[in-house]
Amino acid sequence: MRIAVDGYGGDYSPSEVVKGVLAALEQDKDVEVLLTGKAEELSALAGEHERLTIRDAREVISCDETPTVAVRTKKDSSLVVALDAVKDGEADGLVSAGSTGAVLIGATLKIGRVKGVERPALAPALPTVKGGNVILCDCGANVDCKPTFLVGFARMASAYQKGVFGVADPRVGLLNNGAEESKGNAFSVECHQLLKAAEGINFIGNVEARDILSGDVDVVVADGFDGNIALKSAEGTANAVLTLLKQGVLGGGLRAKLGALLLKPVFKGLKHTLDYNEHGGAAFLGLKKPVVKAHGSSKAKSICGAILQVRDMIVGEVSQRLEKDMQND
Amino acid sequence: MRIAVDGYGGDYSPSEVVKGVLAALEQDKDVEVLLTGKAEELSALAGEHERLTIRDAREVISCDETPTVAVRTKKDSSLVVALDAVKDGEADGLVSAGSTGAVLIGATLKIGRVKGVERPALAPALPTVKGGNVILCDCGANVDCKPTFLVGFARMASAYQKGVFGVADPRVGLLNNGAEESKGNAFSVECHQLLKAAEGINFIGNVEARDILSGDVDVVVADGFDGNIALKSAEGTANAVLTLLKQGVLGGGLRAKLGALLLKPVFKGLKHTLDYNEHGGAAFLGLKKPVVKAHGSSKAKSICGAILQVRDMIVGEVSQRLEKDMQND
Repeated sequence: MRIAVDGYGGDYSPSEVVKGVLAALEQDKDVEVLLTGKAEELSALAGEHERLTIRDAREVISCDETPTVAVRTKKDSSLVVALDAVKDGEADGLVSAGSTGAVLIGATLKIGRVKGVERPALAPALPTVKGGNVILCDCGANVDCKPTFLVGFARMASAYQKGVFGVADPRVGLLNNGAEESKGNAFSVECHQLLKAAEGINFIGNVEARDILSGDVDVVVADGFDGNIALKSAEGTANAVLTLLKQGVLGGGLRAKLGALLLKPVFKGLKHTLDYNEHGGAAFLGLKKPVVKAHGSSKAKSICGAILQVRDMIVGEVSQRLEKDMQND
Repeated sequence: MRIAVDGYGGDYSPSEVVKGVLAALEQDKDVEVLLTGKAEELSALAGEHERLTIRDAREVISCDETPTVAVRTKKDSSLVVALDAVKDGEADGLVSAGSTGAVLIGATLKIGRVKGVERPALAPALPTVKGGNVILCDCGANVDCKPTFLVGFARMASAYQKGVFGVADPRVGLLNNGAEESKGNAFSVECHQLLKAAEGINFIGNVEARDILSGDVDVVVADGFDGNIALKSAEGTANAVLTLLKQGVLGGGLRAKLGALLLKPVFKGLKHTLDYNEHGGAAFLGLKKPVVKAHGSSKAKSICGAILQVRDMIVGEVSQRLEKDMQND
C-alpha cells in the first residue's frame, strides 16, 4: 500500500514530518510513502529510500488562509498535490498535519464521500479507563448539524471501530446532558429517536460527558460543536491536573520530590496514555479513502503514528465497510 | 443572617445534612440556620443549638418526580417549606442537595428573579491552574437558550465574581469551538456580537473548552447544554486521570507504591482542589436571594461549604449587585 503524506503541514514540518515518515517505513515494510513538498529540501532531509517517493510541490497552505480559497487556488501546494495523488489512485490514503479546514475541505472535494454519507466528520480515538478506545465523532468538522448527520456519524465511527480496533458490535452513545431518553435540547431529543430507530446501529442511549472515557461505550456521536467542547474540555482538564500535580510536587518539599522521582515511570506512562495525539491523529471519516488529520504540533512520533493509523484503516477496510453499512439507510 | 437548609435533599440526608449544618454553625457565629424536614428526626440528630431552628415538613421530593408537579403538589416537603421561608423573609438564602429540577423550578417560582433576568442559571466555581476560580454559567439549567440569555449569564456570573471572590472587573469569555470572532455555530456567532456590544461586561472574546481552567478568564458563559458538556467532560477526565494514575501505581511494583506513599499529601491536596463539590455547590444565579444547589452525593463537608457559600453571597450582596447591573440592559 502507498500512503500520501503532506510534507509541509504542521508546525514542525518538513523536518519532523520526514523523520516520522522514515520511522513508519522502518516499522512496516509493507508501507510505501508518497511525500509531497519542495523536492530538494525533502530529499536533503530524507536521503534515499526505496519505498519513499518524493513529489515536488512548490506551495504551502498556511492556517491563516481561507480553506476553500486556498484549496482552489494553490494547486501546487503540498496538500493539494498529495490529495490529487489519492484521487488519481496513486495512493490509498493520506496524512496531513496542516490546516484542518483545508484538509477537510480538500479531502471532501478531491477524494469524495462514500455513497450515502451526508457529511464526513472528525473522529479522534480517545483512551478509556478500561484500556480500549472510544471514538468521539464529530469533533468539529460540522457545526449546526442536522439530526440525520448523527446517524451517519454513528455508522462511520462504528465501521472505524470494527475495522481498526476489532470491536465486533460497537456500542454507540449520544452525547447528552442527561442519561434519560427525554433529556437534552431539541436537537438531541430528535437525534435520540433517529438513532433508536436506525437499523444496524447498536445504540445504547444517551451518554453524559463524564462517561465518555468510562470504557462502557465505543462510539460517542455529537454535533461537531458539542463534540469539540467535550474533547477540548477533556484535553484542558488532563493538562490542568498534570499542572496541579507538578505544582504540588514543587511545593511539597524533599518528600514530594523523592516521591515524584520514584513515580517517574508511572507519570510518563500516564502522559503517554493521555496524549492521544502521540498515537496519531483524528480520523476524517466518511471518505472513499482513509484520511488522518495529525495535530498541528505533531512531531515525528505523531506523524509516524498517523501513517500507521492510515495503514490500519486501509487494512481494516474502513471505507469499504462503511459503504456496505450505508446501504442500511 | 439566617440560611434555610433543605434537611431532606441529597443521597445522605438527613444525617450528613445535619452534620454539615452543625459544622457551618460552628465555623461562623453570625450564621443562623432554619432546617426543614421531619422535626423529630432532625432534632434527634442535631440536638439543641441556639442558632438552629427546625421547621417541620412531612414530605420529601425525590429525584424521580417531575419537578413542576412535585413543587406544586408537595407543599409540605422539606424543599418547599424551606423555599417558603426564604420567600416570606424568614431566611436570606437557601441550600439544597435535592432534585436539581425541583430546586431550580421551586426557587424561580418562590424566590423570584431579579428584575431584567430572563433566565436564572447554574454556575459552579471551578478551580483554575492559577489558583483562582472560574465561573461556568450556565451548566444545565437552560438548554436551547436564546442568545440574549447569555448576556444575562455574563452579568449574573460577573456580579458573583465581584461579590464573592472580589474580582474587580471579571473577564468574560464565550465558550466556543475556536478563538477567532468568526468561529462557532450560528448561535455562538450571534452571542459573540451581543456580548461584544453589551455595556458593562468585560468581554474578552471566545474561549475554547481547553482554556476554561487556564486562569485567563473569570467567567465563561454558554448555553446550558454546552456548559453541561464542558463541566461533565472536565469531571470525567479528572476522574479518569486519577484512575489511570492509581492503575499505574498498582501495576508499578514496590517503587511506585513507595513513591505514591511519599506523594500522598500532594495527591490529597490535588483531589481536594479538583473536587469542587467539596467546596460547596453550584450557585443558582439570577434570583432575588442566593440559592446554592449542593451535589446530590454531598456529605457534611459539602453541605457546610454550600452554607458558607450562601453566606458569602449574602455578605457580598450578589443579588443587589446584579439588580444594579441589570439596569445596563
